[in-house]
Amino acid sequence: MAGNDVGGFARKVILDCDPGHDDAVALLLAQANPAIELIAVTTVAGNQSLPKVTHNALGIATLAGITAPIAAGADGPLTRQASFATDIHGESGLDGATLPEASVTLDPRHAVDLIVELVMSHEPGEITLVPTGPLTNIALAVRREPRIVDRVREVVLMGGAARTGNRTPVAEFNIWFDPDAADVVFSAGWLVTMAGLDVTHQALATAEVAERIAAGDGPVARFTTELLAEFGRRYHDVAGFAAPPVHDPVAVAIVIDQEETARAQARLVQQDPAQSEPARSDEHVEHVEHVEHVGIVRAPITIETAGRHTTGMTVVDLRPSAPRDVPTAVALTLDAGWFWGLIIDAVTTLDTARS
Amino acid sequence: MAGNDVGGFARKVILDCDPGHDDAVALLLAQANPAIELIAVTTVAGNQSLPKVTHNALGIATLAGITAPIAAGADGPLTRQASFATDIHGESGLDGATLPEASVTLDPRHAVDLIVELVMSHEPGEITLVPTGPLTNIALAVRREPRIVDRVREVVLMGGAARTGNRTPVAEFNIWFDPDAADVVFSAGWLVTMAGLDVTHQALATAEVAERIAAGDGPVARFTTELLAEFGRRYHDVAGFAAPPVHDPVAVAIVIDQEETARAQARLVQQDPAQSEPARSDEHVEHVEHVEHVGIVRAPITIETAGRHTTGMTVVDLRPSAPRDVPTAVALTLDAGWFWGLIIDAVTTLDTARS
Amino acid sequence: MAGNDVGGFARKVILDCDPGHDDAVALLLAQANPAIELIAVTTVAGNQSLPKVTHNALGIATLAGITAPIAAGADGPLTRQASFATDIHGESGLDGATLPEASVTLDPRHAVDLIVELVMSHEPGEITLVPTGPLTNIALAVRREPRIVDRVREVVLMGGAARTGNRTPVAEFNIWFDPDAADVVFSAGWLVTMAGLDVTHQALATAEVAERIAAGDGPVARFTTELLAEFGRRYHDVAGFAAPPVHDPVAVAIVIDQEETARAQARLVQQDPAQSEPARSDEHVEHVEHVEHVGIVRAPITIETAGRHTTGMTVVDLRPSAPRDVPTAVALTLDAGWFWGLIIDAVTTLDTARS
Amino acid sequence: MAGNDVGGFARKVILDCDPGHDDAVALLLAQANPAIELIAVTTVAGNQSLPKVTHNALGIATLAGITAPIAAGADGPLTRQASFATDIHGESGLDGATLPEASVTLDPRHAVDLIVELVMSHEPGEITLVPTGPLTNIALAVRREPRIVDRVREVVLMGGAARTGNRTPVAEFNIWFDPDAADVVFSAGWLVTMAGLDVTHQALATAEVAERIAAGDGPVARFTTELLAEFGRRYHDVAGFAAPPVHDPVAVAIVIDQEETARAQARLVQQDPAQSEPARSDEHVEHVEHVEHVGIVRAPITIETAGRHTTGMTVVDLRPSAPRDVPTAVALTLDAGWFWGLIIDAVTTLDTARS
Repeated sequence: MAGNDVGGFARKVILDCDPGHDDAVALLLAQANPAIELIAVTTVAGNQSLPKVTHNALGIATLAGITAPIAAGADGPLTRQASFATDIHGESGLDGATLPEASVTLDPRHAVDLIVELVMSHEPGEITLVPTGPLTNIALAVRREPRIVDRVREVVLMGGAARTGNRTPVAEFNIWFDPDAADVVFSAGWLVTMAGLDVTHQALATAEVAERIAAGDGPVARFTTELLAEFGRRYHDVAGFAAPPVHDPVAVAIVIDQEETARAQARLVQQDPAQSEPARSDEHVEHVEHVEHVGIVRAPITIETAGRHTTGMTVVDLRPSAPRDVPTAVALTLDAGWFWGLIIDAVTTLDTARS
Repeated sequence: MAGNDVGGFARKVILDCDPGHDDAVALLLAQANPAIELIAVTTVAGNQSLPKVTHNALGIATLAGITAPIAAGADGPLTRQASFATDIHGESGLDGATLPEASVTLDPRHAVDLIVELVMSHEPGEITLVPTGPLTNIALAVRREPRIVDRVREVVLMGGAARTGNRTPVAEFNIWFDPDAADVVFSAGWLVTMAGLDVTHQALATAEVAERIAAGDGPVARFTTELLAEFGRRYHDVAGFAAPPVHDPVAVAIVIDQEETARAQARLVQQDPAQSEPARSDEHVEHVEHVEHVGIVRAPITIETAGRHTTGMTVVDLRPSAPRDVPTAVALTLDAGWFWGLIIDAVTTLDTARS
Repeated sequence: MAGNDVGGFARKVILDCDPGHDDAVALLLAQANPAIELIAVTTVAGNQSLPKVTHNALGIATLAGITAPIAAGADGPLTRQASFATDIHGESGLDGATLPEASVTLDPRHAVDLIVELVMSHEPGEITLVPTGPLTNIALAVRREPRIVDRVREVVLMGGAARTGNRTPVAEFNIWFDPDAADVVFSAGWLVTMAGLDVTHQALATAEVAERIAAGDGPVARFTTELLAEFGRRYHDVAGFAAPPVHDPVAVAIVIDQEETARAQARLVQQDPAQSEPARSDEHVEHVEHVEHVGIVRAPITIETAGRHTTGMTVVDLRPSAPRDVPTAVALTLDAGWFWGLIIDAVTTLDTARS
Repeated sequence: MAGNDVGGFARKVILDCDPGHDDAVALLLAQANPAIELIAVTTVAGNQSLPKVTHNALGIATLAGITAPIAAGADGPLTRQASFATDIHGESGLDGATLPEASVTLDPRHAVDLIVELVMSHEPGEITLVPTGPLTNIALAVRREPRIVDRVREVVLMGGAARTGNRTPVAEFNIWFDPDAADVVFSAGWLVTMAGLDVTHQALATAEVAERIAAGDGPVARFTTELLAEFGRRYHDVAGFAAPPVHDPVAVAIVIDQEETARAQARLVQQDPAQSEPARSDEHVEHVEHVEHVGIVRAPITIETAGRHTTGMTVVDLRPSAPRDVPTAVALTLDAGWFWGLIIDAVTTLDTARS
């Protein structure tokens, strides 16, 4: 993994998504940011039906110049009935934002096959999975080819909530939509980092953010501006938010933060080998992942699949006495200024590349 | 489906199994009986681990001259931990029976892919699925390609119990092993006929049956004799049975009964077109499938996935007031003499074919 | 307990009920039969609301000459919402049967207090509890005074089903109404004998039975005739039965059978002390209670409180390998001729006593 | 309720508890503070068995001069097995603190009876229930006499957690011990205010607090000092806390805060009738109870009784869009300085009264 050591290469990412307003922004960020190499986009039913989110993914890919293969996956939860997020994302899954006609075509492979093929044909530790929708495809991939668990670098996902939910008092939509799949993914044994509502509710597209994006000149800026405006209207009406939380790109941003932190560390070591130990020494350093802009804590996380009031909850053990040597982690704090800087850079980069 | 109308062709069957002593007998029957054309064998973790049951399937195929492709599938339940039936089937999954070294090779495709490919490349209504293990592969196939539900002729499975279970007081092993998969299969909307313990406990390999099989001359007879002896010992010690219930071939036998009944009906109509209506007129004829040797009743069937004492139960609604126009059915009675006749014929046919 | 040894005394019974058509018959039987001394009647919400079933109990007591105290108890399940059996018992809980105005008055004590007081003030082993409604009162009594568990002779209840339910495919109404209370009662450690649908569906008030009762001359015969006619109409319309199952008196009949069997045994021993060992020696004699007219088997019984499709089920372990040295038992067979003879004798006795 | 209007009278409180170190402090506070009139103490199994917590209650009453009746109640949860908090409270339930021999005797009535009698014999709205243990007694009282729900002023309880639990990642001990009872209490319809871990973890007995209490001269100060020292040691060892959270008196403190706020408001109105409207106008004033020192928010609260990982959780809906016109409320912030002032005043008052 020389790339990660000396910072010469980007992290290879498969983005599994259900666009979705915030998935769209996640796709833009993953495509534009140099810390990431987007090697596939896979779609899954969630915010809307599989045909609709796949249609949206192709349109976004066309707009953003994504050339990685795009494959469609599961059209509903592992064992339960589908219930789409039409209240938040509208009938199209991306209401209010105008997409270009897609010039990108769908890969004929099933998303689950594509994920398995890519993971098994790359070196161990090379591919990071970034799911931003329900975890159905990922769970099906684990069930189909269990060896991917040891071969994936890690899973960084948008989903769940350690404290307050959105779809129910304690459950976030992606996990609630397919709790059985989430149970498979969180208990598989690979490293799973959860960017849930605790941190994505810090990624609010405030009026100031919206203005900065609207100031951009180009189709990606216009698309993003439309999208955030509609997302904001709906989040206000449905959930009472003053500004909409743009959830999904936070998972992408965590991977960027990891890569940038690794590159910075590698540069330090090149300059001064004595720096090979982490410099920080705050009290809970053993609990915190070594990234700069997102506060992440290792904690046991289980998925409730059987509760009367709690099904779909990510049960995060944040008690002081909880073990920290576990393969699950939760993001709790976000440097929102840094995050929005990434988004605005991505929009600018994509519009510049088009012109 | 001219074949079914005039009886000229056999029913195309995919046998999804986890051999397993009784799965072995199901394979022999499906291979030998002329009412069935075995077009694929797929394996699934259940009685033992996936490698072991796949090894066993290849050995049985070698013994029985099975040339249909054999593909391995899921190595554990959809969402739960695997717990194999080692008490009943032993460490090998087929303890006590000597298999030849396999000359048959494993198909490189995943079982779920093979099922989907075969169903989608045949005509609608052509393929019958006969699962005799946990329903993980079938559920994964439905999730992967939902169109198979309308394209399969029907599902005739060994699993469940309307009354008394075996793995728990009310749950049968196959359903208990992966209740979530069973939930997917029973609620998919296709016709599911369940040959559960209610009927398979009527398929007892008594001493008289064992003697008749042992009288056969050839390796298949010897294998079957060994197998039933060991199965009987274990069933006696573990579950207190005087003779072992040979569950899995009952599902195969139901398909044979269906085909033979259809052929007989077709001959009647050819001779006398006035016979095109069912001849039988017993009181509950609307509830009973038109087969001769197995009593089958349409009844709502749901799968319990969340109980403290009932997880894995097939909840069959046998109340007089229950609706009967449902796509689920349960077998309740078996003509055991006919059934064992089929098995002994199959053993003889296979040994004759070898010599 | 000389009374039970030599047959000189009747069994002291507290009947906890929710009349209800079949509860009414249970009350008549318990009052009239000389094997039973009815020492209290307590009421509980179930077939109808607490005020209605209590009103009915007072009216039946007036008709039948019951002088034991009658006390009202719980007005709903321990933790769940009440859902009355209005479809079967009507708005009054006893639709179609005309009750005299009550001349009996309600005891001011709470049913739970009365049960605890009576049990604690009698000798250990003296009182048998016979619940024929939801088990809320009994569970509350156990929670209030746990020592009653060791002091009660046994609990013989109408409720549950080892096989087919009535309120759901697998749950009987009394247990389904308050499964949490049933869980307390079945797991308390005292001897619980369950007369469930398996046996009460053998207690059908056929036309022949109804005619024999209608032949009686007197208000109790008229009341019982009206009651059975209405109960039959409703059971036919709601549940598709040709004749109504008269559930609740079966529990009373079991106590009568126990007492009569004990008296017969005592007489045998008096005549010939060598008869003190049970005379019967059938294969499963160790599993069968020593009564003459009801087949009862010891079996582990648990209550499902958390299933999606099975809540309220009495999970009876009838597997051959299940332990039999447990304090729970299920009645499976009934001598229906004997049973209806008891009922007709009771009606005659009560009408004779009135005249 | 003139007392509450003009501040001339104290709030009548029944304290239902399972002492327990922090229950002991709650008893001292309720006895000493002039805003409260302690009219009964009832005990329930929880921190330890019923005999032990009742023994402790009598000892504390002797120490503190409590003359209200003390009655013992339920010896275990409504439907589940008891599991005491021996790790935190020790074998005696109050390890490390020396109690005087009890000169107070136990009331012969059952706690549930005493609660029902007191509530029904006082005016509606007169009695506040303050449970600081599992809610078994309160649920049994509701089941026994449902009319108490409309007659009680309100329930202010220690229990639950909106965010992080103690007994499990998301469940607090009192609710986890008997979730079914909690379900009854939280859904009964009366006003329930929950002082859970969110607020009681702000009531830390720091070294500074311990020193102030230890400075007191008298047996109550000595007892409290011993008690806090042991509680601190155990909380440190078991749960990793630097200082122990003294949970139970927070519920008592809320009632004191309510009474003091009402008295202050009444004085204002007496001086200037224009002050009859609440003076505060902060943004969320409609959500906040009008007390001075504890931040309380109305929110829907349900109890999870069926989860695999969440049983015993108080599911508090803190989403912005959640309704606030509900009868359940959760305390989220505590003025710890004020709280410890109350405790120290109580200790001083009691020691002064003794001398």
